[in-house]
Amino acid sequence: MIIQIVNPNTSAAMTAKLAAVARQVAAPGTEGRVRGSASGPESIESAFDEALALPGLLLAVAQGEREGAHGHVIACFGDPGLAAARELARGPVLGIAEAAMHAATLVAPTFSVVTTLERTVASAQRLVAHYGFERQCRRVRATGIPVLALEHAASDAALYARISAECERALAEDGSGAIVLGCAGMADLCQRLSDTLRVPVIDGVSVAIKLVEALVGAGLATSKRGDYAAPESKAVSGAMAAFVPPPALAHALA
Amino acid sequence: MIIQIVNPNTSAAMTAKLAAVARQVAAPGTEGRVRGSASGPESIESAFDEALALPGLLLAVAQGEREGAHGHVIACFGDPGLAAARELARGPVLGIAEAAMHAATLVAPTFSVVTTLERTVASAQRLVAHYGFERQCRRVRATGIPVLALEHAASDAALYARISAECERALAEDGSGAIVLGCAGMADLCQRLSDTLRVPVIDGVSVAIKLVEALVGAGLATSKRGDYAAPESKAVSGAMAAFVPPPALAHALA
Amino acid sequence: MIIQIVNPNTSAAMTAKLAAVARQVAAPGTEGRVRGSASGPESIESAFDEALALPGLLLAVAQGEREGAHGHVIACFGDPGLAAARELARGPVLGIAEAAMHAATLVAPTFSVVTTLERTVASAQRLVAHYGFERQCRRVRATGIPVLALEHAASDAALYARISAECERALAEDGSGAIVLGCAGMADLCQRLSDTLRVPVIDGVSVAIKLVEALVGAGLATSKRGDYAAPESKAVSGAMAAFVPPPALAHALA
Amino acid sequence: MIIQIVNPNTSAAMTAKLAAVARQVAAPGTEGRVRGSASGPESIESAFDEALALPGLLLAVAQGEREGAHGHVIACFGDPGLAAARELARGPVLGIAEAAMHAATLVAPTFSVVTTLERTVASAQRLVAHYGFERQCRRVRATGIPVLALEHAASDAALYARISAECERALAEDGSGAIVLGCAGMADLCQRLSDTLRVPVIDGVSVAIKLVEALVGAGLATSKRGDYAAPESKAVSGAMAAFVPPPALAHALA
Amino acid sequence: MIIQIVNPNTSAAMTAKLAAVARQVAAPGTEGRVRGSASGPESIESAFDEALALPGLLLAVAQGEREGAHGHVIACFGDPGLAAARELARGPVLGIAEAAMHAATLVAPTFSVVTTLERTVASAQRLVAHYGFERQCRRVRATGIPVLALEHAASDAALYARISAECERALAEDGSGAIVLGCAGMADLCQRLSDTLRVPVIDGVSVAIKLVEALVGAGLATSKRGDYAAPESKAVSGAMAAFVPPPALAHALA
Amino acid sequence: MIIQIVNPNTSAAMTAKLAAVARQVAAPGTEGRVRGSASGPESIESAFDEALALPGLLLAVAQGEREGAHGHVIACFGDPGLAAARELARGPVLGIAEAAMHAATLVAPTFSVVTTLERTVASAQRLVAHYGFERQCRRVRATGIPVLALEHAASDAALYARISAECERALAEDGSGAIVLGCAGMADLCQRLSDTLRVPVIDGVSVAIKLVEALVGAGLATSKRGDYAAPESKAVSGAMAAFVPPPALAHALA
Repeated sequence: MIIQIVNPNTSAAMTAKLAAVARQVAAPGTEGRVRGSASGPESIESAFDEALALPGLLLAVAQGEREGAHGHVIACFGDPGLAAARELARGPVLGIAEAAMHAATLVAPTFSVVTTLERTVASAQRLVAHYGFERQCRRVRATGIPVLALEHAASDAALYARISAECERALAEDGSGAIVLGCAGMADLCQRLSDTLRVPVIDGVSVAIKLVEALVGAGLATSKRGDYAAPESKAVSGAMAAFVPPPALAHALA
Repeated sequence: MIIQIVNPNTSAAMTAKLAAVARQVAAPGTEGRVRGSASGPESIESAFDEALALPGLLLAVAQGEREGAHGHVIACFGDPGLAAARELARGPVLGIAEAAMHAATLVAPTFSVVTTLERTVASAQRLVAHYGFERQCRRVRATGIPVLALEHAASDAALYARISAECERALAEDGSGAIVLGCAGMADLCQRLSDTLRVPVIDGVSVAIKLVEALVGAGLATSKRGDYAAPESKAVSGAMAAFVPPPALAHALA
Repeated sequence: MIIQIVNPNTSAAMTAKLAAVARQVAAPGTEGRVRGSASGPESIESAFDEALALPGLLLAVAQGEREGAHGHVIACFGDPGLAAARELARGPVLGIAEAAMHAATLVAPTFSVVTTLERTVASAQRLVAHYGFERQCRRVRATGIPVLALEHAASDAALYARISAECERALAEDGSGAIVLGCAGMADLCQRLSDTLRVPVIDGVSVAIKLVEALVGAGLATSKRGDYAAPESKAVSGAMAAFVPPPALAHALA
Repeated sequence: MIIQIVNPNTSAAMTAKLAAVARQVAAPGTEGRVRGSASGPESIESAFDEALALPGLLLAVAQGEREGAHGHVIACFGDPGLAAARELARGPVLGIAEAAMHAATLVAPTFSVVTTLERTVASAQRLVAHYGFERQCRRVRATGIPVLALEHAASDAALYARISAECERALAEDGSGAIVLGCAGMADLCQRLSDTLRVPVIDGVSVAIKLVEALVGAGLATSKRGDYAAPESKAVSGAMAAFVPPPALAHALA
Repeated sequence: MIIQIVNPNTSAAMTAKLAAVARQVAAPGTEGRVRGSASGPESIESAFDEALALPGLLLAVAQGEREGAHGHVIACFGDPGLAAARELARGPVLGIAEAAMHAATLVAPTFSVVTTLERTVASAQRLVAHYGFERQCRRVRATGIPVLALEHAASDAALYARISAECERALAEDGSGAIVLGCAGMADLCQRLSDTLRVPVIDGVSVAIKLVEALVGAGLATSKRGDYAAPESKAVSGAMAAFVPPPALAHALA
Repeated sequence: MIIQIVNPNTSAAMTAKLAAVARQVAAPGTEGRVRGSASGPESIESAFDEALALPGLLLAVAQGEREGAHGHVIACFGDPGLAAARELARGPVLGIAEAAMHAATLVAPTFSVVTTLERTVASAQRLVAHYGFERQCRRVRATGIPVLALEHAASDAALYARISAECERALAEDGSGAIVLGCAGMADLCQRLSDTLRVPVIDGVSVAIKLVEALVGAGLATSKRGDYAAPESKAVSGAMAAFVPPPALAHALA
């Protein structure tokens, strides 16, 4: 089974980190192929960043489809382009926020999200509402750490302490039973935090890969009826024409 | 007061139709400047179409800001890029679905949306939920008419009859007190439908222009605290680099 | 265009303050006519006060209709009698809480309300829920200042400081991006607070006048289908008979 | 125990019907005192009617308090003036819609409301939402019968058949387990409908009287902390001055 | 009227306390029969405890039915087995959490729950959501006191002080107008707390008995249409066979 | 990895069917151990049936824990005893309704449930609400087929046609993009229905096994903080004493 993990930003360090996670969690028989985006911002921390990341992200999904991917993971906690990616894919496509939140509700009655900058809080709350978990998610908490600074969080004691302290506060003040890490860049902190906090600490990248494996293993693919039907072919002009998938994909999706 | 109306698709006919609406509804002293997108699909009927429309749409918003626009209207019923556009703008930015739904709740206890293809129904329902109007919106109804076909709806009796009949059904079956038209391309049918149905029939384009006028007139601008703060400047690579606004805009937004 | 602003309490000072706001925000071509109530309590701070204010308020709406008003504003933050006033009016009728909350969601992702006495908090929360903004409104906060004391808030430094401090707390603790002022009597503080806090501070009176202008300008009137249909004529006995509008109005509404 | 049942309209026939119900359901030791309103419309079918009914209704509540009532029932399905009446009362005050809906959720998993005119449907739905029963209430259905016509429903076979048929449809189409009758004027049909339909058919008048008995019997009174605290004494001018309760009541409520 | 109060745990002290409450609140003509469970845990503080309590609880309900009970109260704040008990009963069956929460919303705009161990908080919140009272219930608070320790709460000053202090905090911090006591074992503290706090303090046991009296008095029984229909007779094996009610009951329920 | 699939009813045919599904979907390296309950009803179609199934179900979970199970599946669509089972388990525990509904939201924007008897509809709707999927689940539909009759559904053309027709109606009338099968007994129809309907048709048993594999594979276990902490040891009397797990389990869970 081929699962493509798309890094929708253009940070090579993040792509490398994703590859390490994929190697670690993929089941025997699963190939986790990480693909970085060739075009867009080097980190995604605003709706504007997300918009510029989408064409590159969707091109990567289309390329993965052509190469026979059985499923995809969008490795950014804002779950950018999730519906559009599902329109382009046959197999399941999961966002890492979506995957982490679903998993959290399966192993704990309540959870808190610990994320990066304050400005991403409201966006995470919108995802919580969209997926249906307003009752289970007790609070979304910011650490004030930018995405790219997380590159060093595993080796920088002060950064790690800030994240760890916010997790402790989440358990003490929110009454939560699990922690969802709010950025793909925190993936390598997950085990250590989990050992210390003694509650499930959930990294969306790992869990998204495993959930795609599970859905594919259960024979499930993305519904092509309704919203996720393949987009209709139409004229695209200007720079965006380069991001239109070849007709062969549309044919395969029909 | 300058209000920029952005057509996020690349259909020249739609841009012309928007210009006609803007001329008709703008108050004395308001200049409604319509700008089409230079890059992207010629109509927006899927999440994928929307993703490819975003860079061109946001570039248009940034250009409008540079030219001194006091507010913006995004003239596509899916309200694409609304949060990102707000990050780039000083003045108010309204989507036409948002504007039409808000207006509907102010003149009727309940409303129905009458839109284009079946596949856009779930997307409209997501907007209804996102804006908070699940109790007021009784139903979203599709006519099965593609966006570009609406170019001729005012002169094509069969098309008009199909839309009109769906509106009648909405009043009879949903118990709604108003109709929201689910596409910018229906703007020129609004008055005629309203005269026949004798309930408020709401075209988002007209009402969005008037609501931006109202907000600007009340001295209100987009909050730069929280989600809608200007995006942080960062490295953008590949084709997307062309869509990054100049540093001057970031400075003006700070 | 004639917009009638009804002061549903009998405080002459409040009526004068409303007239000043109306003069300030009305567009060229709009006449903002303020009408105080001739019967009822001098301020509205309880459901009982509101009940006694309704007959006078509705009589004022009916009088405005007779005089050709194109729309109405109910200038009390509890939005008293809104549905009943809509039954009596052809054009749009907006409450100032409704107007302010709608506007807040259009310029900020989240908002807090800063209001008068603690006992009005739950009533404001009910309006938040009724209009559909439970997700956007982060908190309703009381200052403990009675409505009539606000007459002096612009000139009384201690009062102003109390209101300003509560707004600061709202921004710091609630994570809100905008402030909604919870009383018509705070209208004259809006600009000063906005300048200091550097977020949108929203006075419902101003914004309601502008939104009525916008709706009328977009050709929208109150739906006469369903809940807001004109009330059926019927026998009314006792003191209330004096508050029944003349048959001519019912005829005009049909 | 004295329970005052207030008829907020001025129909003597309705007042008489309420007295019959009160006699029938009051426990030994309970005196059910029915009081009609001296001022207002003869039936309540619009928000305007409701507004004109409030002063008379609240005067009746205040009079009942002075006479030592231990609790009150507001016998109109729109639950007019409920919060205001609670401000004036020491003991519990129940609306008949509120009472019937609460009771329905205690004896069935789901219920439908069968009411009078189509225009009251949205108002009943607002009450459903306000009380928290959107999940349990499957549908609100209108029979198209005006309130005053119900005077004859027990003896008019055609009217009875219309109501009965709507109840049957509710059971068949809505999957409901109980029927809530949406008007005080249907109280005398309750037993007969219940016998035929073989599900709980709930008349709000009977059940509200019993629930007030229960709350008083459990030693519970209206909370005077927060929203339902006694209204503050203040200047009231014009015709409304006649509806202000004497200072003695405010004193008793403190 | 016979109302059976079932103690679903096997603590004799709790059963005795329930009998005292029943004697105190039952109306003349009501016999409140308390029945303890013969099989299960001596207190219910987890979902596992609740599961082991159910067979004994339901056997008690079936026995009460055979003895002619007109209604039942399930005297544990988790409302265990409520739907199953309704399937077995002709008359109304109320849980004490359900009864207390309904009563709270009838006498106050908002309430807080003060309960036992921290681990029961999420379970109480689920009941709040299930009954529809998420808007009215401001917070569920734990005292950290185990159920069986409550046996002595009336005479142990330190325990009482802890409960009382938590109630005070609820009023000060949550803005609530009433307190719901979150355990049958707190029934004997209700009057004293109410006298001190001067807001409604609601014991579910008392109020459930009174509400069952009210529903029976209004002629209402459990709906046998839909979810609460009598369970179909079927083969039951092993130890559970002893808990199957005799065919006579099924016959009576049909 | 050992995953225990518990059949909470005592039907041997159902247990055999579950074993076949487990063999089919388990990954290499996963042992799917099916365990039937030794005590309780032979099918679960009411809350009463569910209550009698719980002790046997929880005993099976405890036995699986003692034997080293890494996770559990509760193979009945009502997800009986889910919270209690989580209290007894170290690894993840999933109900099949929960698993199927989560999976549905990951591969389609909307879904319908097609289940057995009409009386189970409201119970499935409660699960939908509890898990947070009220927006995604468009409708729960009954086929009127009892659980045990499903034993023959694969070979009985009329039964199959009834189920298939209800699925077709769900797609046509509900606008759903996927079908969730509402009973473990439908597991063997899943592939055939999926082939015909050409949308994802989801059998909770298969998908629950795969999701437990995924969660265990991602290193996630049930949170022991909060609601799912091991139950406290306490006196249990009567027949239920036989269902208390040995102290060793409590020790292992601590």
